[in-house]
Amino acid sequence: MLLETIHSPDDVKRLDAEQLDTLASEVREEILRVVSRNGGHLSSNLGVVELTIALHRVFSTPEDSILFDVGHQSYVHKLLTGRREAFDTLRQYGGISGFQRPAESPHDAFGAGHSSTSISAALGIATANRLAGKDFYTVAVIGDGAFTGGMAYEALNNCAGNDRLIIVLNDNTMSIARNVGALDNYLNRFRNSAKYFRIKNRVKRAFQRIPFIGEGLVSLCKRVKGWLRKRLVRENLFEHLGLHYYGPLDGNDESLLETVLREAKEDGCCSVVHVCTRKGKGYPYAEERPDLYHGIGRFDLETGSPEPCGDGRECYSEAFGQTLCRLAERDERICAVTAAMPDGTGLTDFRKKFPERFFDVGIAEEHAVTFACGLAAKGYKPVFAVYSTFAQRAYDQLLHDCALQGLPIVLALDRAGLVGPDGVTHHGLFDVAFLGQFPGWTLFAPDSLAELRECLERAVDCPGPAAVRYPKGTECGAFSGRFERFGDLFRADFGEAEAELSVVLLTYGRLTENVCRAAELLADGGRKVRVLRAMKLFPLAAEEFEALCGLFGSAERVCVLEEGVRAGGFGERLIARCAQCGETDKHTFRLRAIDGELPLHGANAALYGERGFLPEQIAEFAKGDA
Amino acid sequence: MLLETIHSPDDVKRLDAEQLDTLASEVREEILRVVSRNGGHLSSNLGVVELTIALHRVFSTPEDSILFDVGHQSYVHKLLTGRREAFDTLRQYGGISGFQRPAESPHDAFGAGHSSTSISAALGIATANRLAGKDFYTVAVIGDGAFTGGMAYEALNNCAGNDRLIIVLNDNTMSIARNVGALDNYLNRFRNSAKYFRIKNRVKRAFQRIPFIGEGLVSLCKRVKGWLRKRLVRENLFEHLGLHYYGPLDGNDESLLETVLREAKEDGCCSVVHVCTRKGKGYPYAEERPDLYHGIGRFDLETGSPEPCGDGRECYSEAFGQTLCRLAERDERICAVTAAMPDGTGLTDFRKKFPERFFDVGIAEEHAVTFACGLAAKGYKPVFAVYSTFAQRAYDQLLHDCALQGLPIVLALDRAGLVGPDGVTHHGLFDVAFLGQFPGWTLFAPDSLAELRECLERAVDCPGPAAVRYPKGTECGAFSGRFERFGDLFRADFGEAEAELSVVLLTYGRLTENVCRAAELLADGGRKVRVLRAMKLFPLAAEEFEALCGLFGSAERVCVLEEGVRAGGFGERLIARCAQCGETDKHTFRLRAIDGELPLHGANAALYGERGFLPEQIAEFAKGDA
Repeated sequence: MLLETIHSPDDVKRLDAEQLDTLASEVREEILRVVSRNGGHLSSNLGVVELTIALHRVFSTPEDSILFDVGHQSYVHKLLTGRREAFDTLRQYGGISGFQRPAESPHDAFGAGHSSTSISAALGIATANRLAGKDFYTVAVIGDGAFTGGMAYEALNNCAGNDRLIIVLNDNTMSIARNVGALDNYLNRFRNSAKYFRIKNRVKRAFQRIPFIGEGLVSLCKRVKGWLRKRLVRENLFEHLGLHYYGPLDGNDESLLETVLREAKEDGCCSVVHVCTRKGKGYPYAEERPDLYHGIGRFDLETGSPEPCGDGRECYSEAFGQTLCRLAERDERICAVTAAMPDGTGLTDFRKKFPERFFDVGIAEEHAVTFACGLAAKGYKPVFAVYSTFAQRAYDQLLHDCALQGLPIVLALDRAGLVGPDGVTHHGLFDVAFLGQFPGWTLFAPDSLAELRECLERAVDCPGPAAVRYPKGTECGAFSGRFERFGDLFRADFGEAEAELSVVLLTYGRLTENVCRAAELLADGGRKVRVLRAMKLFPLAAEEFEALCGLFGSAERVCVLEEGVRAGGFGERLIARCAQCGETDKHTFRLRAIDGELPLHGANAALYGERGFLPEQIAEFAKGDA
Repeated sequence: MLLETIHSPDDVKRLDAEQLDTLASEVREEILRVVSRNGGHLSSNLGVVELTIALHRVFSTPEDSILFDVGHQSYVHKLLTGRREAFDTLRQYGGISGFQRPAESPHDAFGAGHSSTSISAALGIATANRLAGKDFYTVAVIGDGAFTGGMAYEALNNCAGNDRLIIVLNDNTMSIARNVGALDNYLNRFRNSAKYFRIKNRVKRAFQRIPFIGEGLVSLCKRVKGWLRKRLVRENLFEHLGLHYYGPLDGNDESLLETVLREAKEDGCCSVVHVCTRKGKGYPYAEERPDLYHGIGRFDLETGSPEPCGDGRECYSEAFGQTLCRLAERDERICAVTAAMPDGTGLTDFRKKFPERFFDVGIAEEHAVTFACGLAAKGYKPVFAVYSTFAQRAYDQLLHDCALQGLPIVLALDRAGLVGPDGVTHHGLFDVAFLGQFPGWTLFAPDSLAELRECLERAVDCPGPAAVRYPKGTECGAFSGRFERFGDLFRADFGEAEAELSVVLLTYGRLTENVCRAAELLADGGRKVRVLRAMKLFPLAAEEFEALCGLFGSAERVCVLEEGVRAGGFGERLIARCAQCGETDKHTFRLRAIDGELPLHGANAALYGERGFLPEQIAEFAKGDA
């Protein structure tokens, strides 16, 4: 296998044209093999095989820097930069990450995970190289989807004049789902021009005529160069921003890419190389349905069938989408907003049923929130469905445009809590802490699908802004029958009814299952344990807070378990409040939450184990032994 | 006075050309009179007098919506929409805000304060109107400075096809200081074309020929219309995004503006009207130095001289800038980054002395942070000087690009705490709470200028990211001699040395002065009081935390005073920590911080009074009576 001989980009530089074809095939096979087992991002990686090979032949990492925007399309890069042997551990606990991570390899110049950061970071790196007098190159590879994020534009506005900075616009005509907006229409004009195929053929012919030594090469290169400038550079959006534009090129034609990248390298101006790649290339199922194979769990390589998530049971995202459709049927003020994730957030049906009230704004969370606020200002009820981690992008808008004005938008925070193999940049660990800082927000953390439906209904009717947070996947429900309801609080006692209450375990959301299992362990050990689960995290009115404290009973110890950051989270705020009204005189309070460095990637069970959230660990913590 | 007869936009619509000239003059006089007394935003408001008059003649608020981006240029709008009599109270406690605020008037369609939100909000409002079947218009007035913010671009990408949405690009060739970036160069090409003056004259001549009734008008209008489309609409950045472009126009020519705005109104497509206004117009001092009069305190109307801030004593911003210059002289890795605020943040000298290491990225806080991270990834030491409130824009970047990678950038957080008359959108109340959520950040809150210098030096040498926060204005220093230092903690005891310690008051930053005055009041009443001041807010290592608790001594009561949000702030986190290690068994803890709705605008003393931060109020709180 040729791929086995590739230990560093230098090995890629040594290959001839035929070997490069073989390498591309082997890389695709390896990615398919591992992603079908481990899950991961498939379509985008299959699309950039030739592009990544070309980049590593034209540039030399780690001296030169190659930054992949978002970073989930860096699998090929990983395979070519010494991580082939570790590739089996992709996205697994202790294994290599599904994104670029400088801690993993010197060939990863900058970490990523959220969209549209690569040009900013690349500009910083290029500037540092310039200041240090180093003639290294910096390349940002950014998709047309990530280009809808405003940050990319902020960076572009500062790029002109940076001569060793190259931006590769990897145009695959979709971000995660179908791309949206004016930029996409604009790019479409280029894509549809037959010119790009002509470019391809012209360059190929030119290359076929290249004599491989001496004067001839130089002279022909010059001719090709002049021709490229004339042909490819034209007045457009990028030129308006002071950048040189090359393209569009067939992004799956390795030799063409090399030619043009070398040209851009020698350009002496910051340039944009616009390449059109085919998502899912080389795997027919993925070419057909690139969205389905964008981020995917395990699947059958032969049939392309994904393993059903949650044993075919309904997921939170689906329950959210169905509920929103039901609510929208009887209230025509309800709108749905998504930032390029209509399918991931469960809005597929809503889009079909209510196209007038459905808004996919592209990867643009800041705009999404303020746009929703504009709708709310005129009496509409917008629901912005977004992964918890991406809502971080709109911190200031959620505070200023929403909370300061008390506008009743709804956030549907999907993927709240740990997200397993997607890892550190995708965990939803901050929403409780940051929404809690803002005046007037209500936050629900439903456990079951039934609760999700109830909470969403209440959120939509809130007079102010409200959010509903729920994890990835399906409800567990193992203990739901055990709980008794007190307003938005739920209580389940474990152990001898007559015994003295020993410890209260307070939690919310998905962690409830492990907390209940811990309670069972403690009960088996002879203790009486009470599990309290909060469905509404804030606000807690005085009487709600008192009711909660009342449920602490005579317990000596109150332990709060939180799958979220400690600082300013539910637990810390509650304990501070208890401390200020004498509750800490009655009970000993302890909090286990996410502290220090954030958990990386791996199965949630492994991450739970790392953070002390497994039943046995919680039981020890409850006893005061850990 | 004509202005006195203007009670609503309808009154503006009734005026003839001569009266409009008079109105414009009177509006300028009134703005100059009030801003010279109350302070405020001068240059931008003087620049948009004719534009605002034209908008209110062409559109009809509150049915139509006019949104001023940032909103500090809405003084003219306020004077024309029923707030003339209240205008004397501009920016004063209980008075009208210096920004648009829906709570203040139905003519303010959407609140603002931070940059680049207007198009998103306008698109939301326009969409709501369309869904509701209402034929109202929505206008976003946005400066060329705000156009460098990525959010504006995210919104533009979604605007095409909205026929009753008009974007007025108010181009005054500067954001707050000189504008930066490729967009500015791009706009400059338009500005410099002589065409815009020709347009002006041609339209004027056309209008002079208009017969005021009947067929002639219709026919001429049609001719003007056809000519405008042909002349003004051309292939450019905005057209690429699917919008119709008109301009550039003389933005201080009211009749021309009316003509083109009416044209845009009838266009049937979302359009951009590019107007060039002159900042400070009508007040020679401000025309000369628009940056100086952008946001200004009280000044002498006759001479234009601003009242010296802080009695001529050095401000925190100046001390920061000077210190950074000194550090940069001996360490050439130090760079300075600003988001369009080189002067406000004290970087004027740095820019002159180290132009190679100075980066003004425009109003683009997200990019600024990630760009700085790129510099740091290659060994540089970037210091991003930014107002605390604007750092909120980069929440996700400060977490992901910075904290997750442990990159040692420095944030110089100016205007931390309350900012008085600038009001609710500009208070720096969240930085302590949100930076505290992120792993690895160090946060300093120096009190004196000397401490600012020390903290900045330490921040620059931190192995991870660090921030230094300091308030607007000058140090108070009234009690600095009273404190004894213990590491990064400062202690001052008040009252009889032999008496039993009654209460500990723990605080940081500017609030220290009032806390000490409260301690004096309590000491006068016979109590022994200890004031503790933290210079480093986090991290607090175990031994630092223990030392702090040790200083609580035998006090029965520990009161934390915090000029910042309660949720997840310094006080709440500290109390939660104390509760978990038994400290709450020894003392009663109480926290006073910013709760609930955020304080609006007015002198800081008034806002302190509202929130219980005056010395007498703190004393009562310390005694447990309040």
